[in-house]
Amino acid sequence: MSAASPTKSEYTACLVIIGNEILSGRTQDANLQYLAKKLGEWGVRLKEVRVIPDIEETIVGTVNAVRAAFDYVFTTGGIGPTHDDITAEAIAKAIGVKLVVHRETFRKMEAVYKPGEFNAARQKMCYIPEGGTVIENAVSIAPGFQIGNVFVLAGVPSIMRAMTDTLRNRLVGGAPILSRTVSVHLAEGVIADGFAALQNKYPAIDMGSYPFYRAGRFGTSLVLRGTDPASLERAHGELVALVRGLGAEPVPEPAEEGKKA
Amino acid sequence: MSAASPTKSEYTACLVIIGNEILSGRTQDANLQYLAKKLGEWGVRLKEVRVIPDIEETIVGTVNAVRAAFDYVFTTGGIGPTHDDITAEAIAKAIGVKLVVHRETFRKMEAVYKPGEFNAARQKMCYIPEGGTVIENAVSIAPGFQIGNVFVLAGVPSIMRAMTDTLRNRLVGGAPILSRTVSVHLAEGVIADGFAALQNKYPAIDMGSYPFYRAGRFGTSLVLRGTDPASLERAHGELVALVRGLGAEPVPEPAEEGKKA
Repeated sequence: MSAASPTKSEYTACLVIIGNEILSGRTQDANLQYLAKKLGEWGVRLKEVRVIPDIEETIVGTVNAVRAAFDYVFTTGGIGPTHDDITAEAIAKAIGVKLVVHRETFRKMEAVYKPGEFNAARQKMCYIPEGGTVIENAVSIAPGFQIGNVFVLAGVPSIMRAMTDTLRNRLVGGAPILSRTVSVHLAEGVIADGFAALQNKYPAIDMGSYPFYRAGRFGTSLVLRGTDPASLERAHGELVALVRGLGAEPVPEPAEEGKKA
Repeated sequence: MSAASPTKSEYTACLVIIGNEILSGRTQDANLQYLAKKLGEWGVRLKEVRVIPDIEETIVGTVNAVRAAFDYVFTTGGIGPTHDDITAEAIAKAIGVKLVVHRETFRKMEAVYKPGEFNAARQKMCYIPEGGTVIENAVSIAPGFQIGNVFVLAGVPSIMRAMTDTLRNRLVGGAPILSRTVSVHLAEGVIADGFAALQNKYPAIDMGSYPFYRAGRFGTSLVLRGTDPASLERAHGELVALVRGLGAEPVPEPAEEGKKA
């Protein structure tokens, strides 16, 4: 089942991270990067991420805004058994459908717990919006779900990843997004002019410049991203020539990457 | 200078992370958590985060939406010297003012570079929206800036942090947001009912439940957050009694925290 038409040239996605614990700084998100890389491989561009609190009105408003604006919407967080897990109910409200029990999940979960332990809180995890399909995973018996173009995933990274890995066949994407990086011990300000000229020459390639600091030396990673392997290779060759013309030699990509200044 | 009135009971903030490198998964954001914790100490609630690409139209639209909706807006990224650094220009467009040279910054930067090295790309970093004030920092000579309730910070974490640390006196906040955590080797589904009842009893305290896995054992961290120390202590005492009533004993907070399921 695919949520988007297969005839487009670019497929877009938005991730909605639902969780007070991210906004308070208690927890460092570990899901954005995983999803971003997977989507890139699958030819889907992650165009926006929103982190929002566990507030129903906010979830409803945000999901309705982004599901209209992007081909795919992914959410993480809020599908556990406690009172602050309100994602399924909020998504059902956003779509305008009821929350209904998913009988197969109910039977599977009931079979796992000892008598009396499959309580109301745990049963809550068997409810999905009417018309949705579950997203199973190898780590946890409680599933995520898909309804329309909205994919609702767990927040626990190991479960979120297992769910994400099952989605390949549900998503229609374009060509994989490829990247080439040239890292050099040159300041951004020295490369800027030549790099801007290269960007103008290859408008279909997304070119970014990212400073790094490693082993006591500053440098810059120049990243080229695009879907056409041939033009990416050409641009990469010209970029290497550019930095050599400035007296530098490409160095291995730093393991700990700098962020954009 | 303060961007918000000092008479409110809650002060809200939104962080806009500007950077293709975050959306592509190349770089893991390291700024959200730092800002969130600082704002909490200063009595400002981070209510939303958006990660958006280096596209002027998107930056303008996002900044205009969130600066109207929150007391404070912080942006990170896109204030360096290369062609993909378009944040200052986009913010000026969003506010509806010109980008003008900040003469003091220009003089300082000019003095640092050797003759001929202070090129147009580097001079770009001296421009801020008209009416703004610079945000200096101890790490880099290139400043961020504030205009109205929008604070534009670097994306490189060391520089972002140094800039953030200077903002204490520019922000009006409420009471610091305090938290108490009870971690136990109990499943969320076992605690859910009692924890929900506690939340109902203390509506002003934000209660969240976060599973963790440590040294081969699953457990749950129960987090209470609020601004009133006395009620936080009372709720914490009742929570400890609750988990003991379920046959568990609080354990030290796990260093590696689980994310919300």
